[in-house]
Amino acid sequence: MKTIYNAAHRAHQAEHEFFRGEKVAAFEKVERADWVLRAVETAKLDDVLQPKSFDDACIERVHSPRYLSFLRRAHAEYQSLGGTGDAFPSVWPIRGMRSDALPENFAARMGLFSFDSGTPLTSGSWAAARAGADCALTGADLLSSGERAAFVLTRPPGHHAGSDFFGGYCFLNNAAIAAQRLLDLGCKRVAILDVDYHHGNGTQEIFYGRDDVLFVSIHGDPITEYPFFLGHADECGAGDGVGFNLNLPLPAGASVASWFAALETGLQRVRGYAPDALIVSLGVDTFEGDPISHFSLKTSDYPKLGALIESLGLPTLFVLEGGYAVAEIGDNVVGVLRGFEAR
Amino acid sequence: MKTIYNAAHRAHQAEHEFFRGEKVAAFEKVERADWVLRAVETAKLDDVLQPKSFDDACIERVHSPRYLSFLRRAHAEYQSLGGTGDAFPSVWPIRGMRSDALPENFAARMGLFSFDSGTPLTSGSWAAARAGADCALTGADLLSSGERAAFVLTRPPGHHAGSDFFGGYCFLNNAAIAAQRLLDLGCKRVAILDVDYHHGNGTQEIFYGRDDVLFVSIHGDPITEYPFFLGHADECGAGDGVGFNLNLPLPAGASVASWFAALETGLQRVRGYAPDALIVSLGVDTFEGDPISHFSLKTSDYPKLGALIESLGLPTLFVLEGGYAVAEIGDNVVGVLRGFEAR
Repeated sequence: MKTIYNAAHRAHQAEHEFFRGEKVAAFEKVERADWVLRAVETAKLDDVLQPKSFDDACIERVHSPRYLSFLRRAHAEYQSLGGTGDAFPSVWPIRGMRSDALPENFAARMGLFSFDSGTPLTSGSWAAARAGADCALTGADLLSSGERAAFVLTRPPGHHAGSDFFGGYCFLNNAAIAAQRLLDLGCKRVAILDVDYHHGNGTQEIFYGRDDVLFVSIHGDPITEYPFFLGHADECGAGDGVGFNLNLPLPAGASVASWFAALETGLQRVRGYAPDALIVSLGVDTFEGDPISHFSLKTSDYPKLGALIESLGLPTLFVLEGGYAVAEIGDNVVGVLRGFEAR
Repeated sequence: MKTIYNAAHRAHQAEHEFFRGEKVAAFEKVERADWVLRAVETAKLDDVLQPKSFDDACIERVHSPRYLSFLRRAHAEYQSLGGTGDAFPSVWPIRGMRSDALPENFAARMGLFSFDSGTPLTSGSWAAARAGADCALTGADLLSSGERAAFVLTRPPGHHAGSDFFGGYCFLNNAAIAAQRLLDLGCKRVAILDVDYHHGNGTQEIFYGRDDVLFVSIHGDPITEYPFFLGHADECGAGDGVGFNLNLPLPAGASVASWFAALETGLQRVRGYAPDALIVSLGVDTFEGDPISHFSLKTSDYPKLGALIESLGLPTLFVLEGGYAVAEIGDNVVGVLRGFEAR
């Protein structure tokens, strides 16, 4: 399968993040994509393509104009106000507060549009995220033009970004943008399978009220795992979307066998939905060596994951999400892709 | 009038805070109360009383049990997990996320129960806030037993704390706790007049659906001023509370004349409500020299404020809120109290 990659991701290079209250080196770093690209090239997977350029209108199908307008200029505005380094939120609207009135104050807008202090807004965040969205859109177009599968090699990741907020290292929801693009190009139903360790809260939020996108996620139980405030098993969708959201949380420390059992449940649901295409939010922080996650898949498990996904027989777009064991991320991601191709 | 004071406030001593994204020395500091106490004593206002001890049930009339349960043990739990210094939130539930499921993860609960990173949770925050609540309850009892007025000299302040969250330097909402106590002791209607520079979002949230407490607030327009996400003029109450919430936002930089004009509007509303008692959330960060606020009252304006409040002819409990021009806070607060007494 072809890989879509844009070196513009390098523009997003965080100095540090706040992780569970502590200031630490950023986990989501440039080297992640380097390792994956090297593994793709070593495996001679297929061509590595540059993305095409897409209009912002394709992104506004998923993200609110007010959020995009903020994000596009946020770091420049921060700098113009004397801010140095990366920007972090410091005040946010809790229950009972309003999100409808747009504050003029910059710090207030930072907080209005984000949900953690683990996502540094850098001078290059917009450029990198925007280039990543172009990769996702290009991947959707490849599927639409008949490719069986493609791999969107992007960072920062996307699945925590909601319709109008960033967080969890994510700014633009690449998987959601690609899903919407597939619908706009003629698909009637698209399924998103999120196998990242962390619940894809942004993707769920974006499609929660809709039946044209099925969202299935296997992840660490939010009762103890990030993003904490979404991803429970009783979240089944709302309105037209009831029945089209399936969360399969597993306790931190769950076995590989229980992970694959949950995957089978998820794949069954995808089969029952009979979508026209599948998007895989491909995080490999399920890996036993991941520094911030607590599942225990081995590198040898990832080809099996790829083969099981292939067994659905669907046009499939893989979109890179998390995975912070940098030295192994390439082998694990490419393991999935080769498992898919080998079957 | 008598002052109720408890030296236990000294237990809350923050190292620093995050102010609009920058790490700075804490504005809400022990010396604030020292200066006010000295001014009270110099002015020979009346006795300075220790608070009585009240049962937690009096506080649970206003704050949720789950929040109190968290707050009581939060810093000890933080330390037991290896946390050092003061604790700050790092991830919180944005729109579309859930606040009903209580996470086991400590960092998640920090974020669930707070709305900014400007409110350091210290080893002594609970002890200080709890002692402050006792002061507020003692003040309410003084009014109930026939005193015309009393002054609750506490810190940390309270008016930003909601039914189940902290923020804005506030942990327990002293004004709300006192208002509820007055109702529980027989008042039919209590009015709260909030003259702090910042909107009393916590007080508003607590009483927003009720008609037995009128909330009137004069403050910097949240479009540019903290707490940003509440305090607009169109917030009039909900359900039974419709018509019992009056916000009088003024633009940052508003003149003293326009401030007193807004006060007159607020006083008229209080008169129309004909409450049995009045609570004044007394912040003096309306002062021209305040380091984080943008009104321009002079020290000589505060006695006039006190006299106008007195003209309502109501049993009146003054509860200390903000004011960060430390050297002047005592004169400004006592100016209000003497203005009330002198009329």
